[in-house]
Amino acid sequence: MEKIYEGKAKEVYTTDQADEFIIRYKDTATAGNGEKKADIAGKGELNLAITTAIFKMLEAHGIPTHYIETLNERDMRVKKVTILPLEVIVRNISAGSFAKRFGVDEGIVFEHPSFELSYKNDELGDPLMAEDHAIALGLVTKAEYDAIREQTLKINELLKAFFLKINLKLVDFKIEYGKDSDGNILLADEISPDTCRLWDKDTNQKFDKDIFRRDLGDLIEGYQEVLKRINN
Amino acid sequence: MEKIYEGKAKEVYTTDQADEFIIRYKDTATAGNGEKKADIAGKGELNLAITTAIFKMLEAHGIPTHYIETLNERDMRVKKVTILPLEVIVRNISAGSFAKRFGVDEGIVFEHPSFELSYKNDELGDPLMAEDHAIALGLVTKAEYDAIREQTLKINELLKAFFLKINLKLVDFKIEYGKDSDGNILLADEISPDTCRLWDKDTNQKFDKDIFRRDLGDLIEGYQEVLKRINN
Repeated sequence: MEKIYEGKAKEVYTTDQADEFIIRYKDTATAGNGEKKADIAGKGELNLAITTAIFKMLEAHGIPTHYIETLNERDMRVKKVTILPLEVIVRNISAGSFAKRFGVDEGIVFEHPSFELSYKNDELGDPLMAEDHAIALGLVTKAEYDAIREQTLKINELLKAFFLKINLKLVDFKIEYGKDSDGNILLADEISPDTCRLWDKDTNQKFDKDIFRRDLGDLIEGYQEVLKRINN
Repeated sequence: MEKIYEGKAKEVYTTDQADEFIIRYKDTATAGNGEKKADIAGKGELNLAITTAIFKMLEAHGIPTHYIETLNERDMRVKKVTILPLEVIVRNISAGSFAKRFGVDEGIVFEHPSFELSYKNDELGDPLMAEDHAIALGLVTKAEYDAIREQTLKINELLKAFFLKINLKLVDFKIEYGKDSDGNILLADEISPDTCRLWDKDTNQKFDKDIFRRDLGDLIEGYQEVLKRINN
């Protein structure tokens, strides 16, 4: 195994299979584009277990993902893809950067899900982009943009239902897509409390990375509760 | 006449006609959301003359605008509208905030025009918004968004041809729309070298507010050259 990429929360390794990667989940937590950082023992393991459950659910509903299998407490075997430099975000309820950017309260429930793209570029601070920007910069074609938007809104409906069954509201989430060697666009990266905002349906208690961003308590207890509800 | 609004470059007055306003063009130039500011004698007059010529041209091509008539060297009589809090921007060539935001050079010619919206809000710094953001915030309906996008891309084609005839490339521009009391959406505000980037077709010399923003020379000489070419 050769490490070919190290991100803020994961490492990517090549294997003896040319069309596969191993993704190792780390315990590092970051916020504010890396300005706040900590090692939180157990986070990687929890995110891998939660991502595994979600990718299996999505695959069962016909969403193609990079997931092949989860090998152990740290490592996921995935199809090799080239990640598109886009953060694909859906918001069902106002929170976080949306509330700050537009000067509105958190907790406003939108009539329709709000879809947005950011340019995945740490140096530039992952800037928000309009649809046409992604096309003008040659990051996606118009047809790819349309396909990604449609697929992402389908994923939002599946995730909303998945979390509602365990009494969690899906406030917003970020996903990433990758292209395999045949040009197919697959859901990649992870889906976990690091990448979703999850509020308890009754109390609005936060069970996501905002616990870390805003010093709201024990992140591990929050993530453990999400996994416990998934497994029950 | 009662002044009901004073912006960075214009004042708006009510008149004895309930469904009309008078817009007075000021000499104030600002940049960087008001951080840089100067009075430049003659700017208001030039912008009014240029805007008048452009609104007449657009009206002649079937674009409904708020324009009624230009009364004198400072004042335009317009239909009363409520301005939508959106800055509607089209880019044909990379420049300005686009180049900075995405870390690319100025001067890249896009295959298709790039359409974007900002939330018109000085306190928040006129933040860029995705299509869905404008709808989620209730600023426009989906049907209004689609109509604005289509109309704006039509205006882009008319403006590109208008400026190309006088040897200027339309790099990008910002327009605003307003709603009249019947709910019709009309092109409003101004279209001038304050709101368009205009580069000489052969030399790429700038004839727009970047002369002021970047201290490139005499703004009035630049704007006078635009008006001279229009009138020839």
